[in-house]
Amino acid sequence: MRQKTFKYTFDTLSKMAKEKENDLGITVKKDEDFSEWYTQLMQKAELADVRYNLKGFPVYREWSTISMKKMYRILEEILERKGHMPLIFPTLIPESLLRKEAEHVEGFTPEVFWITEHGAGERFEEKMALRPTSETAFYSMYSMWIRSYKDLPFKRYQSCSVFRHETKMTRPFFRTREFYWIEAHDAFAAEEDAKKQVLEDMETTYEFLHETLAMPHIFFQRPEWDKFPGAVHTYAADVLMESGKVLQLPSTHLLGQNFSKPFNVKFVDEKGNEKYCHITCYGPAISRIYGAMIALHGDDKGLVLPWDIAPLHVVIVPIIFEDSREKVLKKCRETREKLAGYSVKLDDRDDYSVGYKFNEWELKGVPIRIEIGPKDLQNKSVTVFRRDLNKKTSVKEADLLKEIKKIEKEFTKNLLKKTAADFEANVVNAKTADEIKKSLDKNRIVRASFCSIDMNGMKCAEKIEKELGGFVRGIRVDKKETPKDSCVICGKKAKEVVYVAKSY
Amino acid sequence: MRQKTFKYTFDTLSKMAKEKENDLGITVKKDEDFSEWYTQLMQKAELADVRYNLKGFPVYREWSTISMKKMYRILEEILERKGHMPLIFPTLIPESLLRKEAEHVEGFTPEVFWITEHGAGERFEEKMALRPTSETAFYSMYSMWIRSYKDLPFKRYQSCSVFRHETKMTRPFFRTREFYWIEAHDAFAAEEDAKKQVLEDMETTYEFLHETLAMPHIFFQRPEWDKFPGAVHTYAADVLMESGKVLQLPSTHLLGQNFSKPFNVKFVDEKGNEKYCHITCYGPAISRIYGAMIALHGDDKGLVLPWDIAPLHVVIVPIIFEDSREKVLKKCRETREKLAGYSVKLDDRDDYSVGYKFNEWELKGVPIRIEIGPKDLQNKSVTVFRRDLNKKTSVKEADLLKEIKKIEKEFTKNLLKKTAADFEANVVNAKTADEIKKSLDKNRIVRASFCSIDMNGMKCAEKIEKELGGFVRGIRVDKKETPKDSCVICGKKAKEVVYVAKSY
Repeated sequence: MRQKTFKYTFDTLSKMAKEKENDLGITVKKDEDFSEWYTQLMQKAELADVRYNLKGFPVYREWSTISMKKMYRILEEILERKGHMPLIFPTLIPESLLRKEAEHVEGFTPEVFWITEHGAGERFEEKMALRPTSETAFYSMYSMWIRSYKDLPFKRYQSCSVFRHETKMTRPFFRTREFYWIEAHDAFAAEEDAKKQVLEDMETTYEFLHETLAMPHIFFQRPEWDKFPGAVHTYAADVLMESGKVLQLPSTHLLGQNFSKPFNVKFVDEKGNEKYCHITCYGPAISRIYGAMIALHGDDKGLVLPWDIAPLHVVIVPIIFEDSREKVLKKCRETREKLAGYSVKLDDRDDYSVGYKFNEWELKGVPIRIEIGPKDLQNKSVTVFRRDLNKKTSVKEADLLKEIKKIEKEFTKNLLKKTAADFEANVVNAKTADEIKKSLDKNRIVRASFCSIDMNGMKCAEKIEKELGGFVRGIRVDKKETPKDSCVICGKKAKEVVYVAKSY
Repeated sequence: MRQKTFKYTFDTLSKMAKEKENDLGITVKKDEDFSEWYTQLMQKAELADVRYNLKGFPVYREWSTISMKKMYRILEEILERKGHMPLIFPTLIPESLLRKEAEHVEGFTPEVFWITEHGAGERFEEKMALRPTSETAFYSMYSMWIRSYKDLPFKRYQSCSVFRHETKMTRPFFRTREFYWIEAHDAFAAEEDAKKQVLEDMETTYEFLHETLAMPHIFFQRPEWDKFPGAVHTYAADVLMESGKVLQLPSTHLLGQNFSKPFNVKFVDEKGNEKYCHITCYGPAISRIYGAMIALHGDDKGLVLPWDIAPLHVVIVPIIFEDSREKVLKKCRETREKLAGYSVKLDDRDDYSVGYKFNEWELKGVPIRIEIGPKDLQNKSVTVFRRDLNKKTSVKEADLLKEIKKIEKEFTKNLLKKTAADFEANVVNAKTADEIKKSLDKNRIVRASFCSIDMNGMKCAEKIEKELGGFVRGIRVDKKETPKDSCVICGKKAKEVVYVAKSY
């Protein structure tokens, strides 16, 4: 009897342990079922929880929140370096204010959440919107703050959440009804200055997406039919996702005088003449970029996080045998001290196996794992595992700090090397509609000659959408491309080289 | 004619310049008309703008936003050091969730903003609250996240804005319908752990208010009749304002199991038994603390800002005469370089007088002004003005960095020296109701023996409120005080020493 019970218990325990380890890891491959991979990543790496029970409003957990807070700080720092100052605006916008620019309100009204009452059901005289974006709020104040050419350029931003009643399927980070962003609103004396700001925003996007987050992208001027409500032109960065669809990340809108006129944002120039400002706005969505970033870098084991936004840089896992237990732990603590300049955790939990710990920290995308066991002690070395390469090497104790510094320098660049190569390989040329279709089916971005991105080109774009399943994303801003062929759809003279892609 | 025109123009210009300088400075004394002083400070130092035209929703401008962002970072850093991790919860709370704890919903319902529709007027099936506070949101998730004693303590916070439909008069920072805070929600296995957390929150408050912001305060346990809806006990720090009224700054609530039961926040203990968690919550309001801080330290010239949250540490003002212009500017630029470790601005605007610049930066509370003119050049010195002492001294160029470092160390302590002395002088004892009344009239906090802070003492407290115009703020948490006399109101045996004050 005793033995049987023992055996039964042993089996159960080992089954439970196995279940736990299975439960920890992601059970599908990213390139076989991206959607399930992403859903499991949300739960298992404890990034977002959709059980709050309000459609499109996930709760963001510790691990993703820490990274998003770092992203906010980095981007705020870039914006401030380029002359922006922070403001805090109310979350609510009175309906009348939202209605001041007709095209704008028409664009956003379907998505607005309305506050109509308070307390035990008392109605407000005027209903208020949860801001879907804050142009109307900002510019109503700019009209009072900006007086003279000396106040210009007037560059301000706020970090906040905005609300849009999405009807499409929501998914944590990617598409939610409340999302977290920065919005910069800049006013200028002249149109040229506003256009230069678009280029500065492009550079800011590059610095943030490319250099900090290792996310290759193309910055486009969008076609006329795909503009922000009220904008003269819209510009946006597209990132290519695993799914073969592109995702729009920061966008910049050249608003011209479309808002400064209804909101009366004027200045007195050097000669004493009153003029309307030229305005731009830039809206990088931190939560959306986070979602795209983890989807781009993640692998079958889980997260891979760029260095600057990783909550932990290094986790130290002791390999414990009873006879060397104290010596190993002592070395682990010394190593933690040595790396005090980094964010380091010593995982000395007794009730988890070494294998479980390895899986957990790989799942969570910690850039470096240091393993220290009795053998390492003997060799005066430690084992270093890098999440960018998924490789272990033995490093002499004396060289450890130098090695970590080296990895710090290389880490994000290594991620970029891979993503940039993938990205380039996936941008291809097409000369016919058929070629476009074939390349879209292979999850590619397709470069093609196209008649026009003003309203004249809209019919061709609709054809591409309906017949080929792709969207005309626009023309590059970073370089001027001249079409060599005629329009790939209508055969008329092509004015532009456009990029076509499947899209979220 | 010509002369007349000239004279007219000259007069007008000089009148305009005078108006501008008058317009810059605050025209009332702080201790004569605090309310007007504060209102002018809002406008003239460009801290808050109430012209957004939504009652209780001011726009916070650059200067205050930069400081509030610094305050957030400092307090988040303290909380994280003490084991808290950040989360991001939705701004909206479904009505049913808010209703889960009866006393809580009863307490907050009158103040709730309700979202009832979206788009062109489509009603939601269930209305949603703009969070007035997030207990109900947090604990609905804690019930899913917390499983075992190993998960405890579970300490989390979020930085966000909350919404309360205040019916009292609103004022930027002090009392608004949207305010900016941190809320920490901590779950524990045992009651003792929760009580220790209250003490930790008291220490956090001390570190933040006292050491960082030079704001003396007393941390009280509130009487039973002045509790947070749903709390077992409420604790809060009171600061004494210029007006003679105390202002409640961070409060901590010992929620016991009042929320863990309706929200089912349970854990399995070491022996395998399921138990309900003990919960505390802590809610420092950054915007309110900012308001109290500027009101406390400000003087007739304007803001005085503690070192760690000042947007600028040093402003350099060149004293320009045409013959030495370039030399002086060169020295100013060199000085800026020398102080590159600080936040430094060289105010080389040509179209403002030196006097105007002095006034502006004093109004904005920049801790240090450095003046450099031809005389300073000759003496190889600079003139250093300190906003904490409102005094100028001449400092040898070679000693400048050392001097700035010295001021950095002393600055906030100097502010504290003054505010702490004021605070201590304003806490006085009273043995009779009449003595309480007299001291309250002198804008003091009054210490008195009192029958009880449980519900038995409520009648005496009501008498104090109605007849003396003061509120019983509670008993100290930092030390146990034993009453020597009988209750100052009813004459029965006194169980407590309480503090009575006028209150916002």
